[in-house]
Amino acid sequence: MAVITKYLNLNTSGEEDIIDITNDVSKCVSDSGIKNGIVTVFVPGSTGALTTIEYESGLLQDFPHMLNRIAPKDIPYEHDKKWGDKNGHSHVRASLIGPSLTIPFINGQLLLGTWQQIVFIELDIRPRFRKIVVQIIGE
Amino acid sequence: MAVITKYLNLNTSGEEDIIDITNDVSKCVSDSGIKNGIVTVFVPGSTGALTTIEYESGLLQDFPHMLNRIAPKDIPYEHDKKWGDKNGHSHVRASLIGPSLTIPFINGQLLLGTWQQIVFIELDIRPRFRKIVVQIIGE
Amino acid sequence: MAVITKYLNLNTSGEEDIIDITNDVSKCVSDSGIKNGIVTVFVPGSTGALTTIEYESGLLQDFPHMLNRIAPKDIPYEHDKKWGDKNGHSHVRASLIGPSLTIPFINGQLLLGTWQQIVFIELDIRPRFRKIVVQIIGE
Repeated sequence: MAVITKYLNLNTSGEEDIIDITNDVSKCVSDSGIKNGIVTVFVPGSTGALTTIEYESGLLQDFPHMLNRIAPKDIPYEHDKKWGDKNGHSHVRASLIGPSLTIPFINGQLLLGTWQQIVFIELDIRPRFRKIVVQIIGE
Repeated sequence: MAVITKYLNLNTSGEEDIIDITNDVSKCVSDSGIKNGIVTVFVPGSTGALTTIEYESGLLQDFPHMLNRIAPKDIPYEHDKKWGDKNGHSHVRASLIGPSLTIPFINGQLLLGTWQQIVFIELDIRPRFRKIVVQIIGE
Repeated sequence: MAVITKYLNLNTSGEEDIIDITNDVSKCVSDSGIKNGIVTVFVPGSTGALTTIEYESGLLQDFPHMLNRIAPKDIPYEHDKKWGDKNGHSHVRASLIGPSLTIPFINGQLLLGTWQQIVFIELDIRPRFRKIVVQIIGE
């Protein structure tokens, strides 16, 4: 049994940028030499999130449209009143989707579906540098 | 320490079918012989999701009602315009709920609440065969 | 490799109480003596949830405001009609946010962002005693 911690460096293009990190996470798993176990992908930060999606251009619009229904950009947020950050909606969206994703793998292969990609979602209102944690535990 | 990977085979009845897999996951943990650790339940696919819920008939209606507020079936989706799949709402719902669930256990017992069941939620618009991953890590 | 299971005892003040448990979880990790691995935080129960958030007073209002848009308190729920519990909205909110959170750590330090705290969210309509599971796996 071993624990291997790696990082992905991302430069996001700004709000609602959805980045396919499947190949990067797969490479972390391969490079770790661990055959069977779980990989935990985690974003340190409170305005980004991780999930899986079928990575095609339609859904890359549909998912943000849904976020805008549940946490619209154009309504008042207490966070913005207090801090002037203008990203109150970014924070509540990130907390709802969640900062963490755990994916099992066997024989060095992630057990994803064919049309299922791992994505980082930039929810902040400006381009950000993001250092994503990829931690592999297994044997 | 060991890693054991098992699968559940489900035939879902179609959209918004919510299936209680608690006993199946418990059995996977018991059968693994691992006493203490975590079980990761994962759906390979982008139109299904996993969570916990009190499994009673009222909530099995209330939860889909909520999904229909945040991702209604009767609005246009770019995914559907592009691919004609008619399941754009299924995808965005699945990405929001998430494909993964991690549950700790000790002495071979899942640490669930009394009224808390593990469920697979079919979000696609037709019956599907689903192979759910149940991976146990521990000692 | 080792598995250590600990518990946090919380007395919540009632609905939408959001409690910062970052220091408690960090202490569990330090006390475990495990250097590198993951900590799984889990709520046994179907009316509480776990996520991360920037813990400041504005967002502690904004996040519940969002929940009230997606699962309002003042609409009918089948759960309430059947059981008279009046907490149907609590259940659907909890199932959407999720009962589980997995956070990697190295050298005994959680890999959280500077403005990112681990929170338990009480979603039930009355004060509750909550026993939160904190399970550490690593080496």
